[in-house]
Amino acid sequence: MGRTSDARAKILSAARSLIELRGYSALGVAEICKAAGVPKGSFYYFFESKEALALAVIDEHWTGQRNTWERILNGGDAPLDRLRRLFEETEAGQLAGQESCGSVSGCLFGNLTLEMSNQTESVRARLQEIFEAQVAMVDSVIAEALERQEVSVSDTREAARSVVAQLEGQVLFAKLYNNTRRLGSLWPNCLALLGVRTADQVTAGA
Amino acid sequence: MGRTSDARAKILSAARSLIELRGYSALGVAEICKAAGVPKGSFYYFFESKEALALAVIDEHWTGQRNTWERILNGGDAPLDRLRRLFEETEAGQLAGQESCGSVSGCLFGNLTLEMSNQTESVRARLQEIFEAQVAMVDSVIAEALERQEVSVSDTREAARSVVAQLEGQVLFAKLYNNTRRLGSLWPNCLALLGVRTADQVTAGA
Repeated sequence: MGRTSDARAKILSAARSLIELRGYSALGVAEICKAAGVPKGSFYYFFESKEALALAVIDEHWTGQRNTWERILNGGDAPLDRLRRLFEETEAGQLAGQESCGSVSGCLFGNLTLEMSNQTESVRARLQEIFEAQVAMVDSVIAEALERQEVSVSDTREAARSVVAQLEGQVLFAKLYNNTRRLGSLWPNCLALLGVRTADQVTAGA
Repeated sequence: MGRTSDARAKILSAARSLIELRGYSALGVAEICKAAGVPKGSFYYFFESKEALALAVIDEHWTGQRNTWERILNGGDAPLDRLRRLFEETEAGQLAGQESCGSVSGCLFGNLTLEMSNQTESVRARLQEIFEAQVAMVDSVIAEALERQEVSVSDTREAARSVVAQLEGQVLFAKLYNNTRRLGSLWPNCLALLGVRTADQVTAGA
């Protein structure tokens, strides 16, 4: 029992690394099993298809990331401080990934959205659920900030979607330039999207 | 001569469609030639490798898109009107693509950034050049708007990068949800990122 669980975990971990490195489409089951060090026969004991594996990789990654997001966004700090910490931890996470594998791997969900959503409806649906959950978490923090009159938006859900879109867009640039410093603009951009005028902006416009 | 140029154009066009549909990594030269209706032998007459083909597809797409962006962004309208038109035409272009092939294909450059930039340095370098060119075009429009005191930003280049990042992020969502209406938020978000207070925001914050 311990052994079979091990094999499943090894397959998941190898698939995750290979998908981050080279995307999903180009991967073969044989290659994944080789990287995981498990016999190819055992793959289909755990996963009925490569698509089922992709969904399992997505779910496992989301379980970890959702815990992180909840820890940060449901914390006791002021709402805007929590949002800022989300961006800081995102940047730190991408930097840690770069230090361990040599390149910024970006957002697994963003990568798979662009690669797979038009090919595999089950993956599209799962990724939609995940992004909806992310947007909902950011939304409730923005709603708290709005109640405290710290932001100025007309539709908190729409604002949350824009904040997450900006995050995905800047992570794309971080991957393109293999440079996590690009993510430093997430916080000022978030403030701008939430209608918070900073001293900087006011001065620059004068 | 006419014939050989035809074959090259057919390969490029088939490769472009297949890459939009299924990404680059999973494609084989044989499949591209079959879709293009040209013998496989002729592929290597025009392209020394699949990578060379990817670069040619990127270049051809950029030639067309750069013309569109220049037409819009160097036009005679007020700077902010030009930016708004860029988003409107982006939305219209994605909608036209969806109507012709059934799904929102997203941004070819964004798709290839997430799929290929960590695998193929020549593609990463080309995509960096293209995004730098896009950011430079948007930057000069923002600089004009700043001179007219219509926006309020401290660093026009950084602001342009954020506008393009927001564009990529929202196009990602449009692809994920197969829905181009997501792109309707590009314009209000651009205004927010440029520090332009709209009546809507001021009211919502009150």
